[in-house]
Amino acid sequence: MNYCSTCGHPVEQRIPEGDNRHRFVCPNCDTIHYQNPNIVAGTVPVWEGKILLCRRAIEPRYGYWTLPAGFMENAETTVEAAARETREEALAEVDIHGLYSIIDVPHINQVHMFYRATLMDGTFGAGEESLESQLFLPEDIPWQELSFPTVRKTLELFLEDMHSEQYQVHISAIRPEDRYRSSIR
Amino acid sequence: MNYCSTCGHPVEQRIPEGDNRHRFVCPNCDTIHYQNPNIVAGTVPVWEGKILLCRRAIEPRYGYWTLPAGFMENAETTVEAAARETREEALAEVDIHGLYSIIDVPHINQVHMFYRATLMDGTFGAGEESLESQLFLPEDIPWQELSFPTVRKTLELFLEDMHSEQYQVHISAIRPEDRYRSSIR
Repeated sequence: MNYCSTCGHPVEQRIPEGDNRHRFVCPNCDTIHYQNPNIVAGTVPVWEGKILLCRRAIEPRYGYWTLPAGFMENAETTVEAAARETREEALAEVDIHGLYSIIDVPHINQVHMFYRATLMDGTFGAGEESLESQLFLPEDIPWQELSFPTVRKTLELFLEDMHSEQYQVHISAIRPEDRYRSSIR
Repeated sequence: MNYCSTCGHPVEQRIPEGDNRHRFVCPNCDTIHYQNPNIVAGTVPVWEGKILLCRRAIEPRYGYWTLPAGFMENAETTVEAAARETREEALAEVDIHGLYSIIDVPHINQVHMFYRATLMDGTFGAGEESLESQLFLPEDIPWQELSFPTVRKTLELFLEDMHSEQYQVHISAIRPEDRYRSSIR
């Protein structure tokens, strides 16, 4: 951030009165420009024991497989965001059953939230941001070609819980120092 | 938003290519300025069967009682944010046990997340943003003087679960049309 988005004056970095962190502050109009984490919302869409994944048609991670997910927008709920992303990326309508995973990713200022979901009628496709979508049996998940650590972690947890059919809400964090690795299933 | 925070040029509102929503876009440097919801993180801090509330020393809702909570900052996790806000507003260190409530508030572009917590040693006080802090027995909660609907909803759910000692993760949304009202306990 270089300029005040309110008045166009160059901003400076300082700790505002009553605060304890450096913020971008406008010395002309006194606006404090806070910067906060973003929510990425998505689903684990299931159909007849298989999980729907999308192959990304955009960077980052072009060509890798992901659960349908994306940035939550203003004026929607996390459930609505998760369903919308599934519609946009996988052209699939889903019934959402419950929150499944919340994964903090503090080094990139994101919180990822995945909801358990079932395809409404088994139909799906490839939205603008996807090269293709495909249903995978648990043993066929392309672990070596997954897009993001939060997708990998959510899928690992989900496959464990599929055995017992006991789905809890899983809360965790992924940090760059985690050297997060998956076992091959 | 009037000016591009990157180059200072006046922004315009249009739908970028490949998008389906109006965004603030800079016609000079092509930066797209996305605006997304914020997370408010807090705790339900318990000590010997009582719940710790803070009376707000800042607007909005000056003088009303709240659970300690505030905007999550970049580079922290939701758990860290909840513990930090409890430290700042109630001068209390807490053990955090698990996520308790997630409440979407789409009309103000916020998601509120409260964690169950226990005071580490029973000490607390009033931070800069609080007039005072106080432990309340369930029957003494000041329902008529609570600050925000998400605090009220979280406390209502929590008191129900205190009976059974079965704490689930509660996911819900509060909308302006809800006419959300609490029974007096």
